[in-house]
Amino acid sequence: MNTQQRVGTGFDAHRFVSIDDGQPMHLACIEDWPGPRIEGDSDGDIAVHALIDALLSASGLGDIGSMFGVGHNAKGAGMTGSSMLTEVRELLHEHHIEPINASICIIGNRPKFSPRRSEAQQRMSDILGCPVSITATTTDGMGFTGQGEGIAAIANCLVQLP
Amino acid sequence: MNTQQRVGTGFDAHRFVSIDDGQPMHLACIEDWPGPRIEGDSDGDIAVHALIDALLSASGLGDIGSMFGVGHNAKGAGMTGSSMLTEVRELLHEHHIEPINASICIIGNRPKFSPRRSEAQQRMSDILGCPVSITATTTDGMGFTGQGEGIAAIANCLVQLP
Amino acid sequence: MNTQQRVGTGFDAHRFVSIDDGQPMHLACIEDWPGPRIEGDSDGDIAVHALIDALLSASGLGDIGSMFGVGHNAKGAGMTGSSMLTEVRELLHEHHIEPINASICIIGNRPKFSPRRSEAQQRMSDILGCPVSITATTTDGMGFTGQGEGIAAIANCLVQLP
Ligand SMILES: [Zn+2]
Ligand SMILES: [Zn+2]
Ligand SMILES: [Zn+2]
Repeated sequence: MNTQQRVGTGFDAHRFVSIDDGQPMHLACIEDWPGPRIEGDSDGDIAVHALIDALLSASGLGDIGSMFGVGHNAKGAGMTGSSMLTEVRELLHEHHIEPINASICIIGNRPKFSPRRSEAQQRMSDILGCPVSITATTTDGMGFTGQGEGIAAIANCLVQLP
Repeated sequence: MNTQQRVGTGFDAHRFVSIDDGQPMHLACIEDWPGPRIEGDSDGDIAVHALIDALLSASGLGDIGSMFGVGHNAKGAGMTGSSMLTEVRELLHEHHIEPINASICIIGNRPKFSPRRSEAQQRMSDILGCPVSITATTTDGMGFTGQGEGIAAIANCLVQLP
Repeated sequence: MNTQQRVGTGFDAHRFVSIDDGQPMHLACIEDWPGPRIEGDSDGDIAVHALIDALLSASGLGDIGSMFGVGHNAKGAGMTGSSMLTEVRELLHEHHIEPINASICIIGNRPKFSPRRSEAQQRMSDILGCPVSITATTTDGMGFTGQGEGIAAIANCLVQLP
């Protein structure tokens, strides 16, 4: 019996900026999606944020707020999703925790995700060091994701403790 | 250490048709729930759709859109959830991936799910070839599921790679 | 190959009472959060309810409604989350099912969760007999959680069958 495997789940949601400031959207470690971008003290990469909560939760290491802080003056302010995920991978490594795989579902009207799914999966997998799969869906015009107010992500993962 | 297990998550949400056209609702591979039915290019079976995304994500095989297409002219248009899930089971089989179990949570005001939970679980388990558990809950009148606009499902699963 | 592991997912959402009746909020087995409290026939502990659905779903043992009933006269009416979770642990024990770990994501504007996360995790872990991790996030003012109407939780878990 392998009782050293652990699962984790995470969720995140952010608004789109209401006025396009010409900056690209960051999502799933791709940093040049067409705007309007996702709001946030960091780069608003909800796919990464949900995944980080899933990883830290599975590992018993807190959550994204305890690791990167909250607000404009926090450690995470201004950080990209890629750099945050790199730090999480290093934290897991320090604790001898091995991520086995991760799965993320992005919920929102845009960007049109599927043409770049392979690229996003490759980037996140390379950073985390395990397979990361990403699916994308909409809510048929319903709720805050359907009305284009914002975007959300659910993540889960499997990790191996030492 | 068994590092060949993978987890996956999926989410889906669809509207109910605004006018009952006399056709039954399809949900969780049961095809005779009372209407109004769930909208969709396929039969709108959000429980199956969320599960398929979870399975494909765990398996690294894309998502329901890449497998069945999107829109009225797609491969999946007009397909039932049962037939979609059968094709996914066959795809996994071709890749020597074994589904270990799946868990689905349906979120919505109707149908009254619990009297037919065993039947739905049996059907989905028979099709997929592993235990599929289904729970159902509401959102206390809140949001698009609580206001009866539509219905959603979250799924997760465990699969065994070859 | 260890094919006796199973994953499960659960979701729950409840309203906050619209008028503070002076009673504390119950959440994640902590029973003295500042009000207004969460509505419900039981104590409204959505973190526990989502986790119970995940555990029962992974175990193939139904859901919180089939175990505790629904409505004012149900078995679960008036029960705390702690007492419900204790009964679920006993049910799993009777079936020789061992919970391996659980992960819960709380979605809402309040309470301010992080200062008491360790305490909540410890309580839930003690009751369930395995590690329970809890993260907390908001929806940036969007949807029913963002508008402060209510609070939601997503849970997942890993269990070991006999
Ligand atoms: Zn975030
Ligand atoms: Zn669908
Ligand atoms: Zn509840």
